[in-house]
Amino acid sequence: AAVENVFAEASKGPLSGRHVLITAGPTHEPIDPVRYIANRSSGKQGYALARAAAALGARVTLVSGPTALDAPDGVTLIQVERAAEMLEAVQASLPTDIAIMAAAVADWRCAGEADQKMKKQEGQETHSVALSRNADILAAVAKAGPNRPSLVIGFAAETENVIENAVAKRQKKNADWIVANDVSPATGIMGGDDTRIHLVTEAGVEDWQPMAKDEMAHALLRRAAGALSGLRSAAE
Amino acid sequence: AAVENVFAEASKGPLSGRHVLITAGPTHEPIDPVRYIANRSSGKQGYALARAAAALGARVTLVSGPTALDAPDGVTLIQVERAAEMLEAVQASLPTDIAIMAAAVADWRCAGEADQKMKKQEGQETHSVALSRNADILAAVAKAGPNRPSLVIGFAAETENVIENAVAKRQKKNADWIVANDVSPATGIMGGDDTRIHLVTEAGVEDWQPMAKDEMAHALLRRAAGALSGLRSAAE
Repeated sequence: AAVENVFAEASKGPLSGRHVLITAGPTHEPIDPVRYIANRSSGKQGYALARAAAALGARVTLVSGPTALDAPDGVTLIQVERAAEMLEAVQASLPTDIAIMAAAVADWRCAGEADQKMKKQEGQETHSVALSRNADILAAVAKAGPNRPSLVIGFAAETENVIENAVAKRQKKNADWIVANDVSPATGIMGGDDTRIHLVTEAGVEDWQPMAKDEMAHALLRRAAGALSGLRSAAE
Repeated sequence: AAVENVFAEASKGPLSGRHVLITAGPTHEPIDPVRYIANRSSGKQGYALARAAAALGARVTLVSGPTALDAPDGVTLIQVERAAEMLEAVQASLPTDIAIMAAAVADWRCAGEADQKMKKQEGQETHSVALSRNADILAAVAKAGPNRPSLVIGFAAETENVIENAVAKRQKKNADWIVANDVSPATGIMGGDDTRIHLVTEAGVEDWQPMAKDEMAHALLRRAAGALSGLRSAAE
């Protein structure tokens, strides 16, 4: 019977029976009815992770900011615009077995969003947009508690000191793993189809080879499935 | 011979021999390598105008900010990101017979664009983005001078006092016509396929019926072709 169970599990995929929560894309923070602050995240990495998790047998909830991408098959897609909406959708989706926070969430929202379009004043040459800090979605998900997923994976998109920042982020946010990459425009990673990551775990830093975002997604999810099996074994 | 010429002209379209410059889409103003200020313009109206002008026989230069739209056939497309780049591309395209400034150009750019991604500082709860006024592309094109197109058409996207603002804009910018519309989110015009415009000319304000952006584009370009013929007749 044990052999049959193993076979059935494998045919359904290594994430069969698991619920995976993934965030993807940018968030848009409105300034007024027509203007907003955005970032260059295309959502490609997060959508690739959602497809890979579904292909490996998981039940997948994808919380996505505005992107030009098609909804992946077999995935529950929740579309949001602002970071505050993303946090709300994420919290409503917990608990899950795995959470992968791949969205490029705005650190700041506009402190005083205007109801009407800001008009230029005659002769006014400078202006400023006041910002308030957004909630930290990764930290909220990774915080110890009954709803904490068994495996919380954050992303660190940096343009300098990539690995130091990622190592610090893992500790500070209480994440299990951080996927770090260099999003300087010259790398072509932001918006592109390929990526080159450093995987930061409790054990150290692994420098992965450059590969397609789809390929990275499959490798990361297989690794996550293995880690979950290990946790289950350890608990037994 | 006169009859033959008229027939040949008509078969080539009422804008045959004319050069039409059109701007479309939003502009993106970078804050740092990953963040930028954007607006909700989809570019659909400007691209519809470019297709209509080409269909009516014009040579068309389309200067476009970032959009998800395909390049129209038979149109010279110049892609830009910031308002300053759009101004440069527009000035390099002059003189033309007609200029239609349909882009939603950012009024403001970031005063101090950062070379590296802005990091959150521990405990920092507020922040601000300092802005400088961008050049006014419509006013630059419509200013009297040897490069001024015979017909300069501006757009006014407003969320309140739509017609008053458009009438004032026509005079202040030295534009010939202003196409005004209400882009309040409830109207669905920004990003949608339909529009409802008010055409502000020297003669007054016309309230057009709601129609598809494509249909509005054809009607506006036919009207522009007629106005140019009138100008030619008056000069003869």
